[in-house]
Amino acid sequence: MPSAAPLELHRERVQPDWIDYNGHLNEAYYLLIFSHATDAVMDAIGLDDAARRCTGRSLYTLETHISYLAEVAAGAEVRVTSRLLDLDEKRFHLFHAMYDCADDRLLAEAECMLLHVDMTGDASGARAAPFAPEVAARLQAIFAAHKTLPRPERAGRSVGIRRKAGPS
Amino acid sequence: MPSAAPLELHRERVQPDWIDYNGHLNEAYYLLIFSHATDAVMDAIGLDDAARRCTGRSLYTLETHISYLAEVAAGAEVRVTSRLLDLDEKRFHLFHAMYDCADDRLLAEAECMLLHVDMTGDASGARAAPFAPEVAARLQAIFAAHKTLPRPERAGRSVGIRRKAGPS
Repeated sequence: MPSAAPLELHRERVQPDWIDYNGHLNEAYYLLIFSHATDAVMDAIGLDDAARRCTGRSLYTLETHISYLAEVAAGAEVRVTSRLLDLDEKRFHLFHAMYDCADDRLLAEAECMLLHVDMTGDASGARAAPFAPEVAARLQAIFAAHKTLPRPERAGRSVGIRRKAGPS
Repeated sequence: MPSAAPLELHRERVQPDWIDYNGHLNEAYYLLIFSHATDAVMDAIGLDDAARRCTGRSLYTLETHISYLAEVAAGAEVRVTSRLLDLDEKRFHLFHAMYDCADDRLLAEAECMLLHVDMTGDASGARAAPFAPEVAARLQAIFAAHKTLPRPERAGRSVGIRRKAGPS
């Protein structure tokens, strides 16, 4: 039975060529780090590279929302925790949080909707497909543990300017 | 007076090292392309590189939401249209759409919330700051034109599994 704590499967160091003109980690490379954390979750549920090659099954990202909470400097080492927020027979909703390894500051969060696809078959491209039973079982066990945790404050956010209400 | 059509300021070709194990553009590199489109908008409103260096003012991305709508192959040339969906004295809400130049298919969309910051001053880091009057004037002219357009269908989306309602 997985623990109720978020998964913590990925850490890496910020590369110099990921830094932009503002002198900090470029917005796209926060997402590259989060995508590596998603890869680590795939490995943990039995959708690792060898399985993908063997079965022709993989995950596609349908949608992602990122909250940028702090600047990240070149050379920083970061770690990512990952929680399963929802699940059905072919999709799951993953919530990542990125921390600075040096001082544990929260740097960014990302939510992703991932779709299981079958990439074999005709030239029409990948088709949505239910998870294999052993993958579904691992996801359900993780979800059973993670759904006991409080919902992250920023889960489900959308982009928009929030204005204070005027005098009523 | 800017036209009511979305801005179209950026196109580029998908690089081979942006392709992932599924054989298509990696999710993070869709965002790299969108970030280049944001740079082009910055140039258009007077926050180009020379101005950033001179004034110490720049934009930080607070939040981004991406919808992945189609796979993109290595070597594809893509173009990005950009609309201003909202604006206040120090923030704006930008909505990008990425198209395949070859067949005009819509490939992805990204919404970003951008904050104007002053990077000069003490070591405590960048601080939110109102736009300079000439930048604000350009943004207001673009917004006046763009707000006459219909709101994009996917604007304001959040990540989550949407289940069909059961029988009532």
